[in-house]
Amino acid sequence: MHKWNDDEARLFSLSASNELAEKIAKHMGVKLGKLSSQKFNDGEIQINIEETVRGRDVYLIQATNYPVNDHLWELLIMIDALKRASAKTVNLIMPYFGYARQDRTAAPREPITAKLVANMITKAGATRVLTLDLHTVQVQGFFDIPVDNLFCIPLFAKYYGEKGIKGDDVVVVSPKNSGIKRARSLAEYLESPLAIIDYEEDDKKREHGYIIGEVKGKKAILVDDILNTGTTFYAAAEVLKNEGVDEIYACSSHGVLSNNAKELMDLSPIKEITITDSVEIPEDHIPRQLKVITASHLMADAITRIHENEPMSPLFTYGKNR
Amino acid sequence: MHKWNDDEARLFSLSASNELAEKIAKHMGVKLGKLSSQKFNDGEIQINIEETVRGRDVYLIQATNYPVNDHLWELLIMIDALKRASAKTVNLIMPYFGYARQDRTAAPREPITAKLVANMITKAGATRVLTLDLHTVQVQGFFDIPVDNLFCIPLFAKYYGEKGIKGDDVVVVSPKNSGIKRARSLAEYLESPLAIIDYEEDDKKREHGYIIGEVKGKKAILVDDILNTGTTFYAAAEVLKNEGVDEIYACSSHGVLSNNAKELMDLSPIKEITITDSVEIPEDHIPRQLKVITASHLMADAITRIHENEPMSPLFTYGKNR
Amino acid sequence: MHKWNDDEARLFSLSASNELAEKIAKHMGVKLGKLSSQKFNDGEIQINIEETVRGRDVYLIQATNYPVNDHLWELLIMIDALKRASAKTVNLIMPYFGYARQDRTAAPREPITAKLVANMITKAGATRVLTLDLHTVQVQGFFDIPVDNLFCIPLFAKYYGEKGIKGDDVVVVSPKNSGIKRARSLAEYLESPLAIIDYEEDDKKREHGYIIGEVKGKKAILVDDILNTGTTFYAAAEVLKNEGVDEIYACSSHGVLSNNAKELMDLSPIKEITITDSVEIPEDHIPRQLKVITASHLMADAITRIHENEPMSPLFTYGKNR
Amino acid sequence: MHKWNDDEARLFSLSASNELAEKIAKHMGVKLGKLSSQKFNDGEIQINIEETVRGRDVYLIQATNYPVNDHLWELLIMIDALKRASAKTVNLIMPYFGYARQDRTAAPREPITAKLVANMITKAGATRVLTLDLHTVQVQGFFDIPVDNLFCIPLFAKYYGEKGIKGDDVVVVSPKNSGIKRARSLAEYLESPLAIIDYEEDDKKREHGYIIGEVKGKKAILVDDILNTGTTFYAAAEVLKNEGVDEIYACSSHGVLSNNAKELMDLSPIKEITITDSVEIPEDHIPRQLKVITASHLMADAITRIHENEPMSPLFTYGKNR
Amino acid sequence: MHKWNDDEARLFSLSASNELAEKIAKHMGVKLGKLSSQKFNDGEIQINIEETVRGRDVYLIQATNYPVNDHLWELLIMIDALKRASAKTVNLIMPYFGYARQDRTAAPREPITAKLVANMITKAGATRVLTLDLHTVQVQGFFDIPVDNLFCIPLFAKYYGEKGIKGDDVVVVSPKNSGIKRARSLAEYLESPLAIIDYEEDDKKREHGYIIGEVKGKKAILVDDILNTGTTFYAAAEVLKNEGVDEIYACSSHGVLSNNAKELMDLSPIKEITITDSVEIPEDHIPRQLKVITASHLMADAITRIHENEPMSPLFTYGKNR
Amino acid sequence: MHKWNDDEARLFSLSASNELAEKIAKHMGVKLGKLSSQKFNDGEIQINIEETVRGRDVYLIQATNYPVNDHLWELLIMIDALKRASAKTVNLIMPYFGYARQDRTAAPREPITAKLVANMITKAGATRVLTLDLHTVQVQGFFDIPVDNLFCIPLFAKYYGEKGIKGDDVVVVSPKNSGIKRARSLAEYLESPLAIIDYEEDDKKREHGYIIGEVKGKKAILVDDILNTGTTFYAAAEVLKNEGVDEIYACSSHGVLSNNAKELMDLSPIKEITITDSVEIPEDHIPRQLKVITASHLMADAITRIHENEPMSPLFTYGKNR
Repeated sequence: MHKWNDDEARLFSLSASNELAEKIAKHMGVKLGKLSSQKFNDGEIQINIEETVRGRDVYLIQATNYPVNDHLWELLIMIDALKRASAKTVNLIMPYFGYARQDRTAAPREPITAKLVANMITKAGATRVLTLDLHTVQVQGFFDIPVDNLFCIPLFAKYYGEKGIKGDDVVVVSPKNSGIKRARSLAEYLESPLAIIDYEEDDKKREHGYIIGEVKGKKAILVDDILNTGTTFYAAAEVLKNEGVDEIYACSSHGVLSNNAKELMDLSPIKEITITDSVEIPEDHIPRQLKVITASHLMADAITRIHENEPMSPLFTYGKNR
Repeated sequence: MHKWNDDEARLFSLSASNELAEKIAKHMGVKLGKLSSQKFNDGEIQINIEETVRGRDVYLIQATNYPVNDHLWELLIMIDALKRASAKTVNLIMPYFGYARQDRTAAPREPITAKLVANMITKAGATRVLTLDLHTVQVQGFFDIPVDNLFCIPLFAKYYGEKGIKGDDVVVVSPKNSGIKRARSLAEYLESPLAIIDYEEDDKKREHGYIIGEVKGKKAILVDDILNTGTTFYAAAEVLKNEGVDEIYACSSHGVLSNNAKELMDLSPIKEITITDSVEIPEDHIPRQLKVITASHLMADAITRIHENEPMSPLFTYGKNR
Repeated sequence: MHKWNDDEARLFSLSASNELAEKIAKHMGVKLGKLSSQKFNDGEIQINIEETVRGRDVYLIQATNYPVNDHLWELLIMIDALKRASAKTVNLIMPYFGYARQDRTAAPREPITAKLVANMITKAGATRVLTLDLHTVQVQGFFDIPVDNLFCIPLFAKYYGEKGIKGDDVVVVSPKNSGIKRARSLAEYLESPLAIIDYEEDDKKREHGYIIGEVKGKKAILVDDILNTGTTFYAAAEVLKNEGVDEIYACSSHGVLSNNAKELMDLSPIKEITITDSVEIPEDHIPRQLKVITASHLMADAITRIHENEPMSPLFTYGKNR
Repeated sequence: MHKWNDDEARLFSLSASNELAEKIAKHMGVKLGKLSSQKFNDGEIQINIEETVRGRDVYLIQATNYPVNDHLWELLIMIDALKRASAKTVNLIMPYFGYARQDRTAAPREPITAKLVANMITKAGATRVLTLDLHTVQVQGFFDIPVDNLFCIPLFAKYYGEKGIKGDDVVVVSPKNSGIKRARSLAEYLESPLAIIDYEEDDKKREHGYIIGEVKGKKAILVDDILNTGTTFYAAAEVLKNEGVDEIYACSSHGVLSNNAKELMDLSPIKEITITDSVEIPEDHIPRQLKVITASHLMADAITRIHENEPMSPLFTYGKNR
Repeated sequence: MHKWNDDEARLFSLSASNELAEKIAKHMGVKLGKLSSQKFNDGEIQINIEETVRGRDVYLIQATNYPVNDHLWELLIMIDALKRASAKTVNLIMPYFGYARQDRTAAPREPITAKLVANMITKAGATRVLTLDLHTVQVQGFFDIPVDNLFCIPLFAKYYGEKGIKGDDVVVVSPKNSGIKRARSLAEYLESPLAIIDYEEDDKKREHGYIIGEVKGKKAILVDDILNTGTTFYAAAEVLKNEGVDEIYACSSHGVLSNNAKELMDLSPIKEITITDSVEIPEDHIPRQLKVITASHLMADAITRIHENEPMSPLFTYGKNR
Repeated sequence: MHKWNDDEARLFSLSASNELAEKIAKHMGVKLGKLSSQKFNDGEIQINIEETVRGRDVYLIQATNYPVNDHLWELLIMIDALKRASAKTVNLIMPYFGYARQDRTAAPREPITAKLVANMITKAGATRVLTLDLHTVQVQGFFDIPVDNLFCIPLFAKYYGEKGIKGDDVVVVSPKNSGIKRARSLAEYLESPLAIIDYEEDDKKREHGYIIGEVKGKKAILVDDILNTGTTFYAAAEVLKNEGVDEIYACSSHGVLSNNAKELMDLSPIKEITITDSVEIPEDHIPRQLKVITASHLMADAITRIHENEPMSPLFTYGKNR
């Protein structure tokens, strides 16, 4: 009833997400809006929006992965520009939400940076946010504007299901005790049992890991939301290998893959690592066994539903009724 | 440096927490402030503060357990009254934080009521909150005023430690997959292994439960934060009994014990259930095996530290360096 | 120009106003939206909106009579859910506004709970309010969002006018000195004189009442906005009877009728008590002489005018130009 | 405990209230702070605060009588200057609150200017307000910062009491139906009966006035809060005279006395008109029978109590326990 | 795509800008909305909007020149009324922005009144502002709502260009060192050189003025944004005359012309003074050589572009591509 | 009266300003507070404050020069941490305010990033800001919290005065037309004349520069606030050299010195460039003729005055009454 129309809507991308944004735009059948975003010698970013946004619903795509502080400021500056240029609404599409893990005061006098990010985005003038697989779902509550959070587990479930990796001879493994909810969800889709890897000291040191649950003789799928340094998957795969698991898979919503993650993954016994394209990975950070599946169709559908005032709920069961 | 002084501070209690407040006041060596709070025939609450609060730091104790909506409105009305009566600061002491489990949109179009509560409390005029073992630590980030969250696990660890229930012949069991963090913390204190109870369908239906981890031949301690209807503990204890566990303990920070919880607990094979006095329980809701330990000293110390501008951090390791 | 359309609007009712909402919906020719609102054992309310509200103008009907705190929280939770579910606007229809009498600090250190309610509603996310005969019109100014306040006096004037109870042999009596504005308004419609009942001490104790003005030999109509405990009408009717008034009528916008109001009214010399259906009254609270007239048409017309961007002003003279 | 000290507090006056401020300062034993406030040729006001206010509690006296818009802007500009100059608190002392009668939307599409004033004052940065006999007490609720509202009735009661004008041969008369609360309060102090003057059309036109209550043979005291054009008192006195009242007194908290009020009062049969010094009256606006009593001691005491964190409540019964 | 339509939009004028508003309305081909704005004896303004604005985009024209405080309050009151009457958007059209020169703390403890005005306007409920040649462009940043600022220099450039006053035999002169940006802009349009008048002490005293740059033998155009008392132009013209300049022109965006400006201009050697009609000038304040050009077409075009969601950018180069 | 005391105050530095902070702390005679601020592999910053700040006035030093986005986020995260850790006040000391030049919308649809920065800082929880020579003084008005802005011109005036570079044989030159205010101020201190360099096209391209004013035979001092790429000074010095000026000095408050600024300055005919230590310059970015004077004493004095509630005004005439 309210189809996309250049007089009423604009889709923009900022510098972190140009590739993904092109895929989303193509799937939606619309063009990306024109803007210039330059970084001066002194590090300051200057944005100029090169077509009118007056009275338009604007959808703005930006992941806030590395360099997160630059990407966040670019995002905030663009929101400010859109608001002052009389955009009707400013809808953020954040495939990756940086600082999401700083969601509580783990030690005294720590900030809650994920809340700070939410506050800054809201104060700058965003009117809605669409995220992809937030590290903690409670982060939705850090906002008072509407937040729709899409899940990646259905995408992975569909992928593994189509490859026949499912059922009782597969075990879904949470590589740390805090990730059990996500593993539980994939296990339910694949109708497979669940196991958890715990560490004697605590999650951070990753020493003396052991398994809670049965894995022997099964194919294992490690599940996490963020693949950053790779140490979580690496350590977990070692534990699984020691328990006699031969075929190890891993999937992670967001392939941040910082620093030596490639080297660590290359060394690990993991057969295949599946991630989405939420974050753009530099060529030389790509491990040998990486398999990327696209979240662009899911996100494109979500943007369309937002714009056409259709419910988002069908997207949450994506692939469930296969 | 900044000792309690009637010209500068006031400690009040509202109707949910009179007993606990008396204990806290006694431990602090101060008197509770005078107020009247009455409920009219039409259900409306009227509060009158019966001594001046002008320019004082006010500490206000109220749990928001059943009837949660009445207790919350009484709290909000008192905050409004304090603000208008020129209190210098309004520090809420919330031993139990009602609606804390509604901390995310679990299904489409659900509210995030815990955030709503945080927003209402802040908008009414509270300047700080002290909580006891929040259901989810991320709820701290729902506030932009300072929130100090005390933990009950150290209290339980001390209790079990003194009874000798610790070490390798004990297993700490999370009665549902989402409670693993709390169980993990107690296990670390007691130097005991960890297990989890999972359900084939999902946590809500509690059918076809099974254990992930080793429990056979051990004493088990079930850990949860809220003991409400008792079904979680009941079902978990049944699973443990079926696995051959003879001696089952349970501990829970908040003994809400609504409706038939007493009956269910009476029937269960649990030997002892330990809770804190964060919530006042009606006489006829008390199960046979209930053991209450007080959190009043911990809370009194926290209030004193807030008032005297001393760091809260020592309270987080309470009992750790025993 | 902007007719009701399911793609653009939704009408919901919460638990206090289902009957009235059905009448309003019927008069408007629309269906009530689907939602579930349940109260758990521990008193917490959970709401799930069962059809999409994305981008819709939502009209939400809820009186906040007894149990006022539950009804208010249900209202706030629903507002939060609507906002997060991307409703375009959230228009509250409040036939009865609980706590409206706590509109000032009558004694030192009292709250102004009506303002607190206004603040909470606004902060939760409501964008407009429609009320029916607010206790004090200044409460409109407690909001910074638009508030339209409908009046019941025209409804009563029409009712009495059609029964022929009007003119010089009728006296309109304010049963307490603070209610004179409302009595004055009805007197003007009916072209009848005015009298006031005052008490030697003050309104609250209701001892030694006497009449200011002439009542002897006339039919009297007592007017008030809220009929709660019935003591105001009862005492006033006694004074009128003592002054030799034989035929006593009473009308009140909101029939809260708490506790023993029925018994008191049954005993009183009042011949007929007329109220609107703004509040749902339990069967066993209905006094013998109660007559209910509906405000549903007035409210339905107001909602339609809001939705169609038509002025509200014609509704304020309802019945005046008869 | 917290005595006035130049290092911690400052008392300033703006241009509407210099005389009153001098009296208040003298009663408090403090000096008024230095500032310059000039009005340029183009009507713009420029303020310069001529002594440091950094970290001080500032008390700022300004009535907002005629020219109300200039006085309000001067007030707002001063608040802005104080906030930016790092005043610790900004406490407004408003002996007269202009626009207080625009406290509701009396007709469709009217502003609620009293609320607007409250919003502007708060947004500019005031942290507390002290008022004198607000037109409507509900205006307190227009603020969310603390408001202390002092009453003038006790001052008038003391005045008349000392003159022996009290008891049964006196009647306190509200000159319009909306002023009954204030008349009721004075009547209670003087232990005198009460009467009301009503008009057949409505209060504004003041035609065909008549009395509700007994006045014959008594001394009458007319009571109102604002004496502006004088038409209310004039018309009421005429009605009283026609009813055979010989000795007519009038009292009003605020002597605004605009335009021809002097002439009208000079002509009226009122024997004495008592007002406070809340508003400065130009020499040539003073009617023959005007008697001014000072509210400066009351206000000085209130400021001292605020500054010393003493309760305000004793001031509300000023003169009651004589 | 979104043409003006009485069901969707309203154009109103307040008392400072009736003449200009008529011109704007005529150019747009729409009618001005009906309202009454009266000022009572006590100086209080009362506004009643005489046609519905419910759901409409409202455009409200008001300059805030002398009496600035009255005009500002009238503006704020109207915004409040519009907001409460459910206007969809409130777009202020401010041809002259009073207090714009108080945009920084020039001396310690000064207010920043231009920011205060911005805060008051926003808090009252305005959703957008259109200004004409703000004294300082940074004042745009005092708002967080969209501000479009139109420039007058293109209008003056067109005017002088058509009269042939341009090129190398003309010099554009900034009459004070702070006005160089505006002079620079006109010089660029006219392809003329630039000069500045500086004063030995500082701009305020205007003693011992001297010229920086070459003026001898050229026609000079003095440029400023506000022509208030006339002393800046008068002193500058004297300096130019002393340097041997025969033909002196002056232009200023806003002709405030307070007090004795007429007399001073009459006496000065300036041949022609060009201003826009942003401010209405009383008959007897008009100097002999005044020439008024209209900004109404520019403003009308801007309003139309705002309403039709067309970009404003073409208006900034108005006359540039001649 | 309110001397620095570890129980009441803390001084912290973040990573951009450690050297300057050490100088400030030393001059104040206090120790810097302990904190750790680390940057993870994925670019996220984590801060832990290592001593209690509960109830303390915190002063936090951070310049926001290159890498500006990292420095800004570090600042915002620290503010969030301080607020949640119950700091009493959070006073930012910003020797250099990044993005200050983006203070207006120079072209359509540009952001006003300096305002965005102000909004983010305020929303994060800062309660006061101290800046050093803001690019535009109007930026003070972007804040509603107190901002004290110190000036560097008195420091430079003192420096040149002591070297005898003053009086009529010196000319102070603004290297672009927009910098005239700062040049005017230095000229007044040194009692020297003023000149301006203008460019035929506009400031950005810096082609065809020419001088307005007399420079021949004088020593010239170029004045600017930010020395970033060096092109402004380089081009201006070339123009001066072409006009026959032999001895060229330059001073700039903030030595940002990005990229090839060193090379350009090395090549330029400028004899000496004086800057303050507001920004830390990497060793290999330092031009041959750079002279750094410290602003640390000025800033230390300002912090002390803020903390002791002494007026800031004496610091604005620093060196004036020599």
